[in-house]
Amino acid sequence: MPKTFDIAVIGATGTVGETLVQVLEERDFPVGALHLLASSESAGASVAFRGKNVRVREVDQFDFSLVKLVFFAAGPAVTRSLAPRATAAGCTVVDLSAGLPTSQAPNVVPEANAAVLSDLPLPVQVASPSAAATALAVILAPLRAVLDLQQVHVTACLAVSALGREAVSELARQTAELLNVRPLEPQFFDRQIAFNLLAQVGTPDAQGHVPLERRLVDELRELLGMPALKISVTCVQAPVFFGDSYSIALQTGSTLDLAAINQALAMAPGIETVEDDYPTAVGDAVGQDVVYVGRVRTGIDDPQALSLWATVDNVRKGAALNAVQVAELLIKGHG
Amino acid sequence: MPKTFDIAVIGATGTVGETLVQVLEERDFPVGALHLLASSESAGASVAFRGKNVRVREVDQFDFSLVKLVFFAAGPAVTRSLAPRATAAGCTVVDLSAGLPTSQAPNVVPEANAAVLSDLPLPVQVASPSAAATALAVILAPLRAVLDLQQVHVTACLAVSALGREAVSELARQTAELLNVRPLEPQFFDRQIAFNLLAQVGTPDAQGHVPLERRLVDELRELLGMPALKISVTCVQAPVFFGDSYSIALQTGSTLDLAAINQALAMAPGIETVEDDYPTAVGDAVGQDVVYVGRVRTGIDDPQALSLWATVDNVRKGAALNAVQVAELLIKGHG
Repeated sequence: MPKTFDIAVIGATGTVGETLVQVLEERDFPVGALHLLASSESAGASVAFRGKNVRVREVDQFDFSLVKLVFFAAGPAVTRSLAPRATAAGCTVVDLSAGLPTSQAPNVVPEANAAVLSDLPLPVQVASPSAAATALAVILAPLRAVLDLQQVHVTACLAVSALGREAVSELARQTAELLNVRPLEPQFFDRQIAFNLLAQVGTPDAQGHVPLERRLVDELRELLGMPALKISVTCVQAPVFFGDSYSIALQTGSTLDLAAINQALAMAPGIETVEDDYPTAVGDAVGQDVVYVGRVRTGIDDPQALSLWATVDNVRKGAALNAVQVAELLIKGHG
Repeated sequence: MPKTFDIAVIGATGTVGETLVQVLEERDFPVGALHLLASSESAGASVAFRGKNVRVREVDQFDFSLVKLVFFAAGPAVTRSLAPRATAAGCTVVDLSAGLPTSQAPNVVPEANAAVLSDLPLPVQVASPSAAATALAVILAPLRAVLDLQQVHVTACLAVSALGREAVSELARQTAELLNVRPLEPQFFDRQIAFNLLAQVGTPDAQGHVPLERRLVDELRELLGMPALKISVTCVQAPVFFGDSYSIALQTGSTLDLAAINQALAMAPGIETVEDDYPTAVGDAVGQDVVYVGRVRTGIDDPQALSLWATVDNVRKGAALNAVQVAELLIKGHG
């Protein structure tokens, strides 16, 4: 009989938390007791797990000594306030909220830097990075062996689902208003998101970068182990419900071997390559466990440049699944 | 009394042709007789000009000796078949369809390379480039003086209106079907465009680039007079009716002076800079005569990198207005 782990999921009623519970079930994660937790507003709801409805309880009252593993899938403030209690109670923490400094909780994407975990005795704090950093790390990690990566330029077209259910409803509501020629009344977003693209996801700092862009750069450098890698990022809010799309341009230090690049991508874990067509967020990525990669091509007359297009289920592969994959690595050898 | 010019507009019932007629009126272009022409299917319709409805006639029957200036705003095949007749009849041709080789009809964006026109005796053939090349040339031309441009990386998120009225209807129809939970039946596009992004606009060649991407690279190099400039482009079909958005990353050869860059952009013709906010296609660009530029920032820790976001009315400033601006330069001194 394999050992099981008593687990808590904080933020269990959110889009990521709910998917995380689903993924634990689908992957037969050795869950013993499952404690689903949320803020007082969401407590009382229930979430399905292994054919039963598990009642969501208020996180503030929770006794962390009841569990060994805690997923933080609520906001960063919740993580910052409760992770110390979880750790003090002996829990391993997997943070999906960017609530902990990376010096304390390293970012891990198993396809890119699983080795980080091999030296860590439990309990530990680890972080599952942003969906964009997760997807880009899955794609770029296998390319490190076949090209001399010097610059990464990314335009990340993000689904509204990353901002939660209110954002999803707002896109639907705005769209219906416009189609019905009713006056548009933006609420969750500060302007029209329907049939439009918003080029600023968050509040820019003095240099003009938004926190999500800085986070992506920091996380991706950490995940690839390339602290000096040049990365430019523009995060764009797209009028898409589910699934992120990334337009990626790489500049490298030598002439590229496209066959070797395609082979590295095709062999890499966590990637599905699309060769005679191209992937879309809605048509391919949503609900899937891999990052889809297509339109792989060298520069028009620059053999050192590579362009790619990638799509990922931002909630699933970009967040919930990655966190569970990290947890799987953590418990390996502890079963 | 200023001299007037008898003019023909071919493709007058299309989105660009109709806007072109509007722009001629708005800018008091010295139009004498106006001949609106289209394919046999569209002939018989009428388009408003100076308070009158002008009947659209069939282009195949047209006697080009009736006019001095012809705008080709239909498809490239129409231009290729009829431009020789127009030129033989002594007409100046402004082609918006990419139907003529650039050796024969140079691409012109007045804000970038007006000088090309100064040596040309009428009649001539000139081309108004793609909306993306037009917008990027307007933005990059004034920057040549304040930075050492080495690489341009663009993700061009294109409005469906560039593909004509059928594409606009299809986005509306698909969106309504999805909101009403009816089965999606793609017709004009080969898959779901509503709430999705399509990363391949056209058919890729053996190297993986689509014609529109090659066209943008060629046109932009020509407009900037920088034939060796490294440019990577991904053209994305966005679920947006009107207005293109461009995510632009520049790599330069020396440390950037952001104040000088902002000043150059603010002073440049054809640009509206948005400083404390950011522009969107729908909220700013649509219906306007300028390219909107925002989110101007240097790299997170790369003082030689610059990122920008730009939006443009692809039909108006990106096509119809540019063609009229070109014509204004052509007739200058010939009035």
